[in-house]
Amino acid sequence: MTRAGYLAGMRIEICTIGDELLLGYTIDTNGAHLARELAASGVSVARRATVGDGAEEIAAAVREALDRTGAVITTGGLGPTADDLTKPAIAALFGRGMYLDEAYLDELSRRWQERFGRAMPESNRQQALLPEGCRVLVNRYGSAPGVWLEDDRGRWVAMLPGVPREMRGMLADELGPIVRDRAAREAAARGDGEPGVVRARTLRTTSIAESAIADRLGPLARGVDGVSLAYLPGREGTDLRLVVRDRPAADADAALAAAADQVRERVGDFVYGEGEADLAAAVLALCRARGLTLAVAESCTGGLLGARLTAVPGSSDVVLGGVIAYSNAVKTEMLGVDAEALAAHGAVSDPVARQMAAGARARLGATVGVGITGIAGPGGGTPEKPVGTVHIAIDVDGAARAVGYVFLGDREEIRFRATQFALDLVRRALDPRGLEPPADAAADRPVRGAARAPVPRPR
Amino acid sequence: MTRAGYLAGMRIEICTIGDELLLGYTIDTNGAHLARELAASGVSVARRATVGDGAEEIAAAVREALDRTGAVITTGGLGPTADDLTKPAIAALFGRGMYLDEAYLDELSRRWQERFGRAMPESNRQQALLPEGCRVLVNRYGSAPGVWLEDDRGRWVAMLPGVPREMRGMLADELGPIVRDRAAREAAARGDGEPGVVRARTLRTTSIAESAIADRLGPLARGVDGVSLAYLPGREGTDLRLVVRDRPAADADAALAAAADQVRERVGDFVYGEGEADLAAAVLALCRARGLTLAVAESCTGGLLGARLTAVPGSSDVVLGGVIAYSNAVKTEMLGVDAEALAAHGAVSDPVARQMAAGARARLGATVGVGITGIAGPGGGTPEKPVGTVHIAIDVDGAARAVGYVFLGDREEIRFRATQFALDLVRRALDPRGLEPPADAAADRPVRGAARAPVPRPR
Repeated sequence: MTRAGYLAGMRIEICTIGDELLLGYTIDTNGAHLARELAASGVSVARRATVGDGAEEIAAAVREALDRTGAVITTGGLGPTADDLTKPAIAALFGRGMYLDEAYLDELSRRWQERFGRAMPESNRQQALLPEGCRVLVNRYGSAPGVWLEDDRGRWVAMLPGVPREMRGMLADELGPIVRDRAAREAAARGDGEPGVVRARTLRTTSIAESAIADRLGPLARGVDGVSLAYLPGREGTDLRLVVRDRPAADADAALAAAADQVRERVGDFVYGEGEADLAAAVLALCRARGLTLAVAESCTGGLLGARLTAVPGSSDVVLGGVIAYSNAVKTEMLGVDAEALAAHGAVSDPVARQMAAGARARLGATVGVGITGIAGPGGGTPEKPVGTVHIAIDVDGAARAVGYVFLGDREEIRFRATQFALDLVRRALDPRGLEPPADAAADRPVRGAARAPVPRPR
Repeated sequence: MTRAGYLAGMRIEICTIGDELLLGYTIDTNGAHLARELAASGVSVARRATVGDGAEEIAAAVREALDRTGAVITTGGLGPTADDLTKPAIAALFGRGMYLDEAYLDELSRRWQERFGRAMPESNRQQALLPEGCRVLVNRYGSAPGVWLEDDRGRWVAMLPGVPREMRGMLADELGPIVRDRAAREAAARGDGEPGVVRARTLRTTSIAESAIADRLGPLARGVDGVSLAYLPGREGTDLRLVVRDRPAADADAALAAAADQVRERVGDFVYGEGEADLAAAVLALCRARGLTLAVAESCTGGLLGARLTAVPGSSDVVLGGVIAYSNAVKTEMLGVDAEALAAHGAVSDPVARQMAAGARARLGATVGVGITGIAGPGGGTPEKPVGTVHIAIDVDGAARAVGYVFLGDREEIRFRATQFALDLVRRALDPRGLEPPADAAADRPVRGAARAPVPRPR
């Protein structure tokens, strides 16, 4: 694998500043966001450092980073309090004084008055104090301006706020274009062609184990034509991240597209989307396209499937609602599950899951009903039905199918995976290709013969 | 505020290692965990660095950190692949060679055979290669051992794996005790007393705005007797983090306890718990103590309230279930909401919320029913009922009360806040002190007169 630091183009360092970061009370997400965005433009992050709010610490870390790469982005320490020393510390490093930017002060005061209907506190004046000779990076997302400072040798520091929303917006609007332009100019000055970039695409799979994906990919399991392939297993399934490094942007995108096509061809219907795709949204789109409505009946998931479906904006044209049938009495009274089935097979069984799905569909007047019943733990397991046993059924216009699984993990994982399999069951039932129910998952195993042989009722 | 780096005791640096971190594909949580745990033992993190997998980068970062503090913890780069160079890079820095630890190799092979039923791959042999003269930090959570390496001047590097679960376990079992012991010995050698520590406690509040908390705290709003107070607003409410720095452990804990008591006294019933306390679990405990059962009726939250309640292990003795009444037909047919109320007041109204709560209670045979109906957006708002309008009702044995709010935020925030207010409504209704419904929240405003004046039905 190509090393991260080996992009041919510009190398920079990142310093994230703040006692809260250093003490571990805040998780640093700014560094990762900056690195991804910069890499996609061909700029490598050579090192990242986190220091506290002290002026000496800030100056030392930035000085060392400048000595290594001549290019540093800082986040944090631009606020209005006495702790916020990033600007003066770095100005001193560049041998610059600070001046009060009257125009910015006026704008800050005006914004404060507009937004809060009162005069700006004295402490906020500090945000209009800027290093001499700096370029202001406009902040449309908050009150602290960013700062670009450069010395006569072309070494630079860009200072962004620590609030992630502000930092991300300013990177997109202000700093990103400056850095890209500079990277291109430096490459041209070196006589390089277009700088290499790092680009990524993620295919989302579910209901299939990592090893089964690798088997299907065969010789492509480690990567495709110089595009690396990483397996990222999570509770939603295994994401396949394709990454191409150090190629000109157009090449990189073309290589990614070709690799994604090849992977999709082999992994087939286990891929339900790309990037941030959500399985619930995919299921709703399938239903919507066919004019179907959905109703759910949930026992062990207690509303989580309904919550995931209705988290999607516009879900109300598909989802009618459902029944959270946590107790057996509710299964009987609100869904019409018959007491005999409960007694003969137990609440956690294919027949009860089927009757739950059928009951939800019929009583709510939907075209598709989904039923989930299981043992999420930590208590309630038996040798026959261990914790993690979940039966999931789908009823489409009166034709029902149930599948049993044993999911691994803690209560939260078991419940989430049950909703994921339920969604995938619906997706597969509605897929025009006519797919089988999901039968295979990372570290999960189907219940053998559960649909055929009644087993004792759990205590 | 005392600076993070100003604890009188031992100072160390942290290096987190990995191309994935540097490229931003993985968020570093190890650094924060290490910092919190060490600070609680009086050890300050002076700086944190992230570098790629290259041997030179690792050696450079660790060398510089050793020059500053003489004490470094690394995470990552201990795996079985050619990319994993932490051990040889740091061994070289200490002028040590590598040797194959036959005993560890035997154990690894045995574990592999036991767990996977086949011979260990050749590549895993690398995990038994150790720096000469090192101390092994046993890893009970995975296959990569940790390493403690120390030179004759007492400078040391501790290497832990990058997998968070393994790193955390090994810090607790192995490295934590060594570092604490060393910090105490160094303090004694310097003639210091007991080293100062950083300790924190978090009080969780809900249904009250930050500014209202500050008003109640008055002169304690910035801190209590040297214990600092931070306001951490989130979708569950505002957490109040009390932090005491640089005092001996017993002093620190006593100061924290006294400060927490004073804050609790002033913020009163808005505090629902401490640390990782969950409001749903608190509500279930209140119900359980009084032998009550719960049923929910959810429209805009679509099952999220049920999901939060049933996420708590053992919830089945309190939660009977509920109805996800997303469509108006389901509200009428499954909950008995009368069509007149829907027509007269609209689905998002106090009367409908009350009838939903009553219907869930009666039909599921519970003692307490909760109803939620609202407009989560992004569409569906009107001037009279903007996006974020939510009516929440509780029915206890037939006595119902409804409250209307307008929650700010996106769909996800509005839905979550609605469940949080619903839970707090139940908590307050069941509190032996006889509390009023929640009426005030960060950036949320109650619907004025919604309970009294019927307003037009939303389109």
